[in-house]
Amino acid sequence: MEIALQEIARNLDRADSLILTGHIHPDGDSLGSMLALYAHLAAAGKNVELLLDDELPALYSFLPGFEQIRRPDGSRRKADWLVVLDASDAERIAGVREAVDAPILNIDHHISNTKYADFWYIDSKAAATGEIIYDLLRLMDAAVTPDIAVCLYTAIATDCGFFRYANTTSATLRYAADLIELGAEPSVISEYLETKPLKSITTLTQVLATLETYENGKIAAITIPPELVDDGSETTEGFINYPRNIEGVEIAIMFRPTEAGTRISFRSRDADVSQLALSFGGGGHVRAAGCTVAGDFSTAKERILEAAVKLLAESGQ
Amino acid sequence: MEIALQEIARNLDRADSLILTGHIHPDGDSLGSMLALYAHLAAAGKNVELLLDDELPALYSFLPGFEQIRRPDGSRRKADWLVVLDASDAERIAGVREAVDAPILNIDHHISNTKYADFWYIDSKAAATGEIIYDLLRLMDAAVTPDIAVCLYTAIATDCGFFRYANTTSATLRYAADLIELGAEPSVISEYLETKPLKSITTLTQVLATLETYENGKIAAITIPPELVDDGSETTEGFINYPRNIEGVEIAIMFRPTEAGTRISFRSRDADVSQLALSFGGGGHVRAAGCTVAGDFSTAKERILEAAVKLLAESGQ
Repeated sequence: MEIALQEIARNLDRADSLILTGHIHPDGDSLGSMLALYAHLAAAGKNVELLLDDELPALYSFLPGFEQIRRPDGSRRKADWLVVLDASDAERIAGVREAVDAPILNIDHHISNTKYADFWYIDSKAAATGEIIYDLLRLMDAAVTPDIAVCLYTAIATDCGFFRYANTTSATLRYAADLIELGAEPSVISEYLETKPLKSITTLTQVLATLETYENGKIAAITIPPELVDDGSETTEGFINYPRNIEGVEIAIMFRPTEAGTRISFRSRDADVSQLALSFGGGGHVRAAGCTVAGDFSTAKERILEAAVKLLAESGQ
Repeated sequence: MEIALQEIARNLDRADSLILTGHIHPDGDSLGSMLALYAHLAAAGKNVELLLDDELPALYSFLPGFEQIRRPDGSRRKADWLVVLDASDAERIAGVREAVDAPILNIDHHISNTKYADFWYIDSKAAATGEIIYDLLRLMDAAVTPDIAVCLYTAIATDCGFFRYANTTSATLRYAADLIELGAEPSVISEYLETKPLKSITTLTQVLATLETYENGKIAAITIPPELVDDGSETTEGFINYPRNIEGVEIAIMFRPTEAGTRISFRSRDADVSQLALSFGGGGHVRAAGCTVAGDFSTAKERILEAAVKLLAESGQ
């Protein structure tokens, strides 16, 4: 059932015990939103816990409270609410659903949200779930501490490509301005997010060497060589911007073969790649989406490229 | 003589003929500020001209009015004012000084400004000269058209690394928010600035192969191979961020050997590289500066590295 943000504020105020989670393959928006809301609820004296059923990218370990996030351990927990942030479908919270006995309250900004929760608030005009959490904290008369500001600034900035993606609105920049006044330092946050080990330059060079183009340069793809995968996915996350920024490229694809299948990221100029991702069981936004395809890599690659060519044709490119 | 922004507004209002210029090796702030002010003054019926004594990076050709910028042609012009935007010393306007017979009015945000003009307004707290021009246009009751908004957004965004550098303030983000409401589209502007020809990826791979580190990894340097220089400097401009973002690097240096000498860019985490640049006749900001050193490349490189090591020692790193 859809509910208003005011009602969510009231429900959280009244609750005693809460479990917060985000989506698997966690990003800055998911983690920053979780940690910001956690900081306020913990300060308000609630019994609150952070659960996430995936590995956490070390890239975000600078976020205050990061070390409080746990993976489900097989035991089953009861709570007044399971608050699910930034996850657009039930599969994206994975094992957390089974691990928690509580009604689900979902706060999200993905237009592809499947409305799987018991209660949901979805604002697809928000550039990030972090924007909604900031509004929620204001409705709850929360003290937005510098730590919370850092979490929300990271949530917002990472989900709009540091204010470069099409989802960036004047409201997005005004949220960010507020958060700077509340203690977030843009250059400190971006340094944490951009600082990379020396080795990552070698990796980048190897990955760029895999660049392939299709359909007269309208599709460009790169592949993370399997031997590099163990380095941690955070070092390769932004690599898709290289094919994406090539003149004439409409759809950019990054393949990341793993033992559990091939993880695929999509970026586009105009074509709706969330459709593409959805058709393979993934999700995301119109111009940035992702999915995982089981089975061997070359078959997965072939299927994805075929679907991308089809999408290109359908979108009249 | 220092004057108030209100007084600049009055002087421009009263003037009949104006020539606007920026600095050589022009960047987004210099060009965007020139073109924004030009658009308003031309719309107000002034006799106004854009002069710049350097080649213009094609990267910025999407800026409305770009094609109106001329190089000095040897003739001498008279005007009520020569308005110099974003140039911190007289050398940075090169031949324009000789080409124009007019008092100089300088609007700038560089802390290193040498106060060379007849009249100046310098706000070193502004992240970009574009911020000051927006204030000036408001003081002049100018209609900020979408074209002007695009120029100013580009000026501001490029000079604070798309809101990632330490000069980004909450005010910077609020200026940008205003400009979005006035018609600037962040994603369109960033796509213009980030779209690169396919060849640039090959270039990047070649440049990254030149990476060298010194002083236990505290200094990292890359060199643009001379055979690549003719491709146009705009494709290599951002490459310095690769060494800059390596863990443990305090000073990043990019060498670009040309027939006229070696162009050098500096970036730092904390050390004041504007001092380094100034000591070689260049200029810039504390954490981002540049200069040109005449003579052969290997001597230039040796002198620069020596000075960088000295700065590192002096700044206690």
